[in-house]
Amino acid sequence: MYTLYYSPGTASMAVHLALLEIGAPYQLVTVDIDTGAQHDPAYLKLNPLGKVPTLIIDGRPRTESAALLMMLAERHPEAGLAPPPGSAEREAWLQWIVYLSNALASTYRFWFYPADLGAAEHSPLQRSALQHKIEAVWDHLQSHLAAHGPYLLGRDISAADLLLAMLMRWSRNMPRPATEWPALKLLADLLRARPSWKKLYELEGLSGW
Amino acid sequence: MYTLYYSPGTASMAVHLALLEIGAPYQLVTVDIDTGAQHDPAYLKLNPLGKVPTLIIDGRPRTESAALLMMLAERHPEAGLAPPPGSAEREAWLQWIVYLSNALASTYRFWFYPADLGAAEHSPLQRSALQHKIEAVWDHLQSHLAAHGPYLLGRDISAADLLLAMLMRWSRNMPRPATEWPALKLLADLLRARPSWKKLYELEGLSGW
Ligand SMILES: N[C@@H](CCC(=O)N[C@@H](CS)C(=O)NCC(=O)O)C(=O)O
Ligand SMILES: N[C@@H](CCC(=O)N[C@@H](CS)C(=O)NCC(=O)O)C(=O)O
Repeated sequence: MYTLYYSPGTASMAVHLALLEIGAPYQLVTVDIDTGAQHDPAYLKLNPLGKVPTLIIDGRPRTESAALLMMLAERHPEAGLAPPPGSAEREAWLQWIVYLSNALASTYRFWFYPADLGAAEHSPLQRSALQHKIEAVWDHLQSHLAAHGPYLLGRDISAADLLLAMLMRWSRNMPRPATEWPALKLLADLLRARPSWKKLYELEGLSGW
Repeated sequence: MYTLYYSPGTASMAVHLALLEIGAPYQLVTVDIDTGAQHDPAYLKLNPLGKVPTLIIDGRPRTESAALLMMLAERHPEAGLAPPPGSAEREAWLQWIVYLSNALASTYRFWFYPADLGAAEHSPLQRSALQHKIEAVWDHLQSHLAAHGPYLLGRDISAADLLLAMLMRWSRNMPRPATEWPALKLLADLLRARPSWKKLYELEGLSGW
């Protein structure tokens, strides 16, 4: 039994999707980041960084969405969310997950939290530099997926795609949403057609894209 | 036989350290990022992002330093750079590597490349916000290591420590270098005393800390 501390549509979303794909029993605990519940002393005991998600695994709190996807994939090999260790696909899988976390998720953090850069709002220059950095990731993914898609590893879906779809969704109100890149749009369509995606929208109360 | 495309003291350093710890045969190819060699068409074929490191594994180019550490650790279990899959330590290992890559390495990128934020230099506000974000990581690691060190996983060294030591080294010219945090200083001392560290300094022509 897992327990996922989550907030709708945030970094917890990919982990929630993975739990649904795996079909493992879990319970959800909402952490309302709009009211600052991530800073409650009880929550900080689980996650001293005061962020979502936190996933309780075997009674121990674990954090970092990209790492949680790796943990779940390793614990449930039968779900096929990761290629087997020792395979070439495994290496590609590790590379994509780390790339998405290191280059994209972290840039979004600055995009959505201008305070992390010391100001209440981005300067126009900063804003467009961050936008450019995010769009460069879409360009890179577009070339890869157009040649080797439809999923990041090719024919088969993996946890890396769950992470990517979540991160794509975060661009929906940006000047150029990720779905403007055709190979990315295709990947999003494939993900959105899955029962796990529909179930997640229901459970997290999400709408739109 | 591995081939590591590297530049002295950069993100390739942790991967180079891992190769030395493993004792696997490898060859080095220098990519001089000061002269822009990372943008040579031949190099871009290996790594379209134009960054170091790139590691050739079984003839295939792989990138992302944190992912390369995971790949090497999985390929060489006898080197003990990763706890075995399925263990609690394995989960902690994945979490620390992803955290260091997502929260720290990416912030350094903005620290060292103001152009990524659209300017030739940081504004004082920005600079201190980035500094603060990096120091918050040292605070977090200090609490963890003081209670559960000396290494990130406790008594035994792992690939996560190689990544951390490299990232700590990058702070050496910052207002407050990471070694001002005592548990981090201890970890650095342990790493610097290893034959792999000394060999790396020799091979990469590094000096000081
Ligand atoms: N690296 C973390 C980042 C988590 C993160 O930044 N979560 C955001 C929501 S997407 C959050 O908790 N924000 C609330 C806050 O920072 O106060 C992960 O991937 O799990
Ligand atoms: N996420 C990459 C980042 C690599 C990176 O930014 N490397 C820097 C050196 S530390 C680089 O290649 N800089 C040259 C450039 O960006 O032009 C990794 O961890 O491997």
